[in-house]
Amino acid sequence: MVSTNPARGMRDFLPADIRKREYVIGVIKEVYESYGFEPLETPAVENLETLMGKYGEEGNQLIFKILKRGEKLVQSAGFSLSERDESRTLNELTDLALRYDLTVPLARVVADNRNELPKFFKRYQIQPVWRADRPARGRFREFYQCDVDAIGSDSMIVEAEILTAVSRILNRLGFNDFTIRINDRQVLTDILDTAGVADEMHSIALVAIDKMDKIGPAGVAKELADRGISEKSSTMLTEIFAKTGEILDQEGDINRTIVSNLINIVSNETLSKLGQILKFASKAPIVIDPSLARGLSYYTGAIMEINVPDLAGSLGGGGRYDGLIGMFGKEQIPACGFSLGLERMLVVMEERGMFPPEIAESTPADVLVTIWSEETISESLKFANELRDAGIRVTLYPELDKLGKQIKYADSIKVPFVCVLGESELADGNVTLKNMATGEQKTIARNLVAAKLK
Amino acid sequence: MVSTNPARGMRDFLPADIRKREYVIGVIKEVYESYGFEPLETPAVENLETLMGKYGEEGNQLIFKILKRGEKLVQSAGFSLSERDESRTLNELTDLALRYDLTVPLARVVADNRNELPKFFKRYQIQPVWRADRPARGRFREFYQCDVDAIGSDSMIVEAEILTAVSRILNRLGFNDFTIRINDRQVLTDILDTAGVADEMHSIALVAIDKMDKIGPAGVAKELADRGISEKSSTMLTEIFAKTGEILDQEGDINRTIVSNLINIVSNETLSKLGQILKFASKAPIVIDPSLARGLSYYTGAIMEINVPDLAGSLGGGGRYDGLIGMFGKEQIPACGFSLGLERMLVVMEERGMFPPEIAESTPADVLVTIWSEETISESLKFANELRDAGIRVTLYPELDKLGKQIKYADSIKVPFVCVLGESELADGNVTLKNMATGEQKTIARNLVAAKLK
Repeated sequence: MVSTNPARGMRDFLPADIRKREYVIGVIKEVYESYGFEPLETPAVENLETLMGKYGEEGNQLIFKILKRGEKLVQSAGFSLSERDESRTLNELTDLALRYDLTVPLARVVADNRNELPKFFKRYQIQPVWRADRPARGRFREFYQCDVDAIGSDSMIVEAEILTAVSRILNRLGFNDFTIRINDRQVLTDILDTAGVADEMHSIALVAIDKMDKIGPAGVAKELADRGISEKSSTMLTEIFAKTGEILDQEGDINRTIVSNLINIVSNETLSKLGQILKFASKAPIVIDPSLARGLSYYTGAIMEINVPDLAGSLGGGGRYDGLIGMFGKEQIPACGFSLGLERMLVVMEERGMFPPEIAESTPADVLVTIWSEETISESLKFANELRDAGIRVTLYPELDKLGKQIKYADSIKVPFVCVLGESELADGNVTLKNMATGEQKTIARNLVAAKLK
Repeated sequence: MVSTNPARGMRDFLPADIRKREYVIGVIKEVYESYGFEPLETPAVENLETLMGKYGEEGNQLIFKILKRGEKLVQSAGFSLSERDESRTLNELTDLALRYDLTVPLARVVADNRNELPKFFKRYQIQPVWRADRPARGRFREFYQCDVDAIGSDSMIVEAEILTAVSRILNRLGFNDFTIRINDRQVLTDILDTAGVADEMHSIALVAIDKMDKIGPAGVAKELADRGISEKSSTMLTEIFAKTGEILDQEGDINRTIVSNLINIVSNETLSKLGQILKFASKAPIVIDPSLARGLSYYTGAIMEINVPDLAGSLGGGGRYDGLIGMFGKEQIPACGFSLGLERMLVVMEERGMFPPEIAESTPADVLVTIWSEETISESLKFANELRDAGIRVTLYPELDKLGKQIKYADSIKVPFVCVLGESELADGNVTLKNMATGEQKTIARNLVAAKLK
């Protein structure tokens, strides 16, 4: 007998889960639409070449790859897997892959539809992505990203609007203790240059610095050494981050503090951009964190991340990627986006009990209609449809069981009311309505039941 | 430069597409919920063994299979693809696959969660499925199914409720010329037995009979011969279908007509079941078609299909599958379901112009707020958020362009109103509101704009 488990690291969502997920997704959609962002969807499956090389070396490894089919696979015959040339294996065996994030597909779509899309294309996209990561608590191989991106402008108004929208979503869901940290990839580049890290080692160094939160400055120093960064550079980086790594908030005199710590390292232009984001998004709880790195390799400007105290990872993150769309089209088009992690939000909301009661305690229907006898089945079906016409959610008991068993079943699925249409009720045009919470039972005119239930 | 096309047979959905899709999905959800069906979602990826062998030989071929990863793939080293043993190739190289339909995953979930789910579990599920079919007009490799299934009862009340719910959806969307054809697998089994087709050839014969619509009786006879059915059996089948193949509707005296044609072939029990469906779902436009076969191999009882005159294929289909859940669990649990094809419905609705105007002519926002100068950016952002607080969808122009250019852009994205906050407006607490359709322009108090726009 085959296993009944879902695939490793993936999950089935039963009705109570879906209702919570759809509540959060509903709030996200409504807020993004109120900012003029429009919906977009892309296929789960992309050509392998679309995804490879966009997420760094680790990303390449974690992409789920799809086996070629029929003729295409047969043409690969004669090639032996024992020749362990990985890139050749991939090219021989696979041509498609599962979506790894929503940003690279967006870049492809923008390049593909440049003439049909508005100059400033603002889109949101809420779809699953797949990563062949080792499953762990809170880390899944299929998870939803809720992305919002603005294409076509390099103004910091874009960063500010995105952060304001994301803040509004979190507020609407009841989060009031989140912090948005921002930085600019240029700040990190300037710091790395100052510490004497060669250009080609920058992305490797960023992967280490990205772990500052998890492993602390000593851990980062060790990783830098492991990755071949000289001890001199590593020491210098640690010193710079010790001086600048304190988080600067809007209340403090940002410019002066940044200037005193970063003026010799970072250009005025970069500092001014960060200052603009703070000014334009003045209501969002933003702080500058010069050590914030973000893992993905396609970011070119502002980067941002949202945290809450009781979650180890982030609720979401994003940044500016002015170079990515140009990898797919002739034109270099500026872009900036943010991705909220649905699962992360749900974990915190579940632990804190943040769901409204109508979501947390939802029922499959407002009322259950019973079946009295073989002869009256059609009448029960008809009555159920009358209630549905009036906007009531009705479940019909599907079998000719004893009435007591039907009522017991209604109780087990927590339906608040039960309707009985016996022979006497049918003869008089009545229905007996039972309130499952109080046990109270009343026989009323059939055409008044819907109003009563409302 | 990499291609910007989506993968072969798959599609990107731009905002106007998504709005139409979400409108249809919204109606489907609302109706299914009004019948007491609850939402369920399963992963896109299933263990390969969960899917293999459930859809017949053709199905096995069309399943997208995912390459093993890392260590698992390395362990396959030494096996050469030139040994063309297909099942071995698959076992060596793949362990996962993309969902092929929503019914087999449901059966797995029910077997896996039997104790948490109600005895009569009624669920709907609206998710994409993937099939490595040859792409053609209207045939895609990624498409949405809108499934509704009732688990746990073998009563025909279930078939009737499902068909009533599906009819209600189609009515709500504006379809008024669809026909529901129903049959029972037992009718076909009895006919095949009568024609002397051996048990082990039944499923092969059904695949041929399933094409009656497309290739006619002569085509079916040829396919039967090609598949090794004796000429005698084939002739007899053609004769039986010529006698019984006329579609029987509710208006005629069904029992008498069926009896006269099928009484010597089909048991009273099977005929009575079909009669019950017609009686219980008396408002749905149902006809009995004894030649309706349906392609999938897991059906055991009633089968059903919906057609409209201007579409070659069906809008959807379904049936009873009392044996499928038992393939995953200890218990044999009766079940019946129906699947509406989202893409099929959309094609017909598009051709017939069935979308309501607010969906067909939707805009990215209700109003565009312009930017006046560097100094007033924060005020424009603030004002945009005031409107959003009042429930207005606002897009903010993201750059410091000339006002004329900003208004021209608003026109290009068909936003109906533009708000201008110049220095004089800001000083007086006013906003200039431009109606893009009439060109009319009015300066009004800032706090009255939201009410005006509503």
